Amino acid sequence: MNESYYMEVTKKSYSSSANLGPGYDILSLGHKAFFDSVTVKHNNSNGVKIISNSTPEEPDKNTAGLSILKIMEDKGIKTGLDITIKKGVPIGLGLGSSGASSSAAVRSVNELLDLGMGKDEMVYYSMYGEIAACGSAHPDNVSSGIYGGLTLISSTSPVKVKKIDINYNFNLVLVIPDISMKNKTRYARSIVPQSIKMEEHIVHTSRISTMLYGFMKGDRDAIREGMNDDIVERSREAMFPFYRDIKEKVINRNAVSACISGAGPTMLIFADDKTRKDEMLGDIKNVMGSYNTDYSIRETGILEGLDDQ
Amino acid sequence: MNESYYMEVTKKSYSSSANLGPGYDILSLGHKAFFDSVTVKHNNSNGVKIISNSTPEEPDKNTAGLSILKIMEDKGIKTGLDITIKKGVPIGLGLGSSGASSSAAVRSVNELLDLGMGKDEMVYYSMYGEIAACGSAHPDNVSSGIYGGLTLISSTSPVKVKKIDINYNFNLVLVIPDISMKNKTRYARSIVPQSIKMEEHIVHTSRISTMLYGFMKGDRDAIREGMNDDIVERSREAMFPFYRDIKEKVINRNAVSACISGAGPTMLIFADDKTRKDEMLGDIKNVMGSYNTDYSIRETGILEGLDDQ
Repeated sequence: MNESYYMEVTKKSYSSSANLGPGYDILSLGHKAFFDSVTVKHNNSNGVKIISNSTPEEPDKNTAGLSILKIMEDKGIKTGLDITIKKGVPIGLGLGSSGASSSAAVRSVNELLDLGMGKDEMVYYSMYGEIAACGSAHPDNVSSGIYGGLTLISSTSPVKVKKIDINYNFNLVLVIPDISMKNKTRYARSIVPQSIKMEEHIVHTSRISTMLYGFMKGDRDAIREGMNDDIVERSREAMFPFYRDIKEKVINRNAVSACISGAGPTMLIFADDKTRKDEMLGDIKNVMGSYNTDYSIRETGILEGLDDQ
Repeated sequence: MNESYYMEVTKKSYSSSANLGPGYDILSLGHKAFFDSVTVKHNNSNGVKIISNSTPEEPDKNTAGLSILKIMEDKGIKTGLDITIKKGVPIGLGLGSSGASSSAAVRSVNELLDLGMGKDEMVYYSMYGEIAACGSAHPDNVSSGIYGGLTLISSTSPVKVKKIDINYNFNLVLVIPDISMKNKTRYARSIVPQSIKMEEHIVHTSRISTMLYGFMKGDRDAIREGMNDDIVERSREAMFPFYRDIKEKVINRNAVSACISGAGPTMLIFADDKTRKDEMLGDIKNVMGSYNTDYSIRETGILEGLDDQ
């Protein structure tokens, strides 16, 4: 029994917004709005025990538990573990809640058991948690919990992630509708078109390229041009009928751009010192009022990297 | 009659490779392998006269002539112009030949008539030449003739171009098959699928993003991962049956990557000091021999920008 037996390791993982318009299933941005914290320590059983303030406590139904079970299976680890999850990222709002728990758990276990996993391997295991959340595994939702910042999935098999530099100072504004939908992510994925026209593909490869160029070069206009999506966001408009109005209004108030955060309903606005924020918040109030939808606003910043966590 | 009446202006525009794998219709790379030079001066008629060593001499069937006629129409210019085209970029090989003539002509006229057009406006007019070449206008083929380097079409209406930094030292190797196909570009465009599956779209947005990240960061592995296309190149395989073999062989010899140049048949290989070039050239010889196809090799470098022209 080594000296780590009595140790415990706690890691935090923050909220994130996947997709960013044209980056469906490949981009994710970590931000500091909310966080989960996960503490891992040995116990005397030979199983995994989940202690949580909100998520399912059966390890095989819990995003963090599934990830840890997969690591232990693959690496032949038999020790018993208590995994204590304090959820701070609200569930079901498109804020990467399931990915936050699993990535924090994977990072904690990696340290406690001295597994020496690299970041891409941790992304790989973290995404197993997504199976619990939406029936299939998507590394985009967890990649920012492992890397921080803006992440690009460059390959899914094997999982490879590129961290994209952001050379622009944003104020992020999250508009979080008070809407709860059962099986939302599963439904949101099911209504995305199964095929698209070649012309749409060309337009959207141009947009994602322009947006990433904009982030890397700090080119406001390029980010604004690129962050538009007529495939995935368009297909989900009936789920979030207020979104087009909100986007039009915030662009008129000179926000840099806006998008649906993950599978929604939260909307992510990229604002800066050129944005007329007070008028923008007034417009948002009017639009959400016209749809009789309660909401909250959370202003936050980009999570730069693991050092913040 | 102003002092420019007796002047003449000559500009060179170089060869280029559009698409680069996943960047169909939006990316183009200028290189120094071949160039057209276009000289423009006033004449005593009130029309546009083309003098050329190879292209059609009717202005409305010539890529450069069409571009100049469009400028004169839009800007109400009535002067007569002699446009002398010396073609150096071979025609019909996927090397941006038509775009080279039109972009050189547009830049020459812009200077001769002191029109003060910006680069994106010159791209817009240059692409009118493409109508003559393949029946429709595509700004990607001309953008590198106006900007040099690696260009991204971020918008087609209005035309907007972003110049992408390349932070890696490449040796470019062009493999130029001795194949002539009538109406090649028109045919090559007609066989591209009209719709694609959503999963293909996701994979290819990831690839183009990874490739552009790689160019901007000088990340060899990312360029290698990203420069792969299973939509457009795949659909054209029957036109260039040797291409898959060539690509597999050059990757095995540790080229960075390879792609079809524009609508082919030329293939563009990105090599560097890690590439086993002699063995690679031997492999190419064997493959092309097995397809009974003559070819030439042209080694060149990236055209950095307008200063080179």
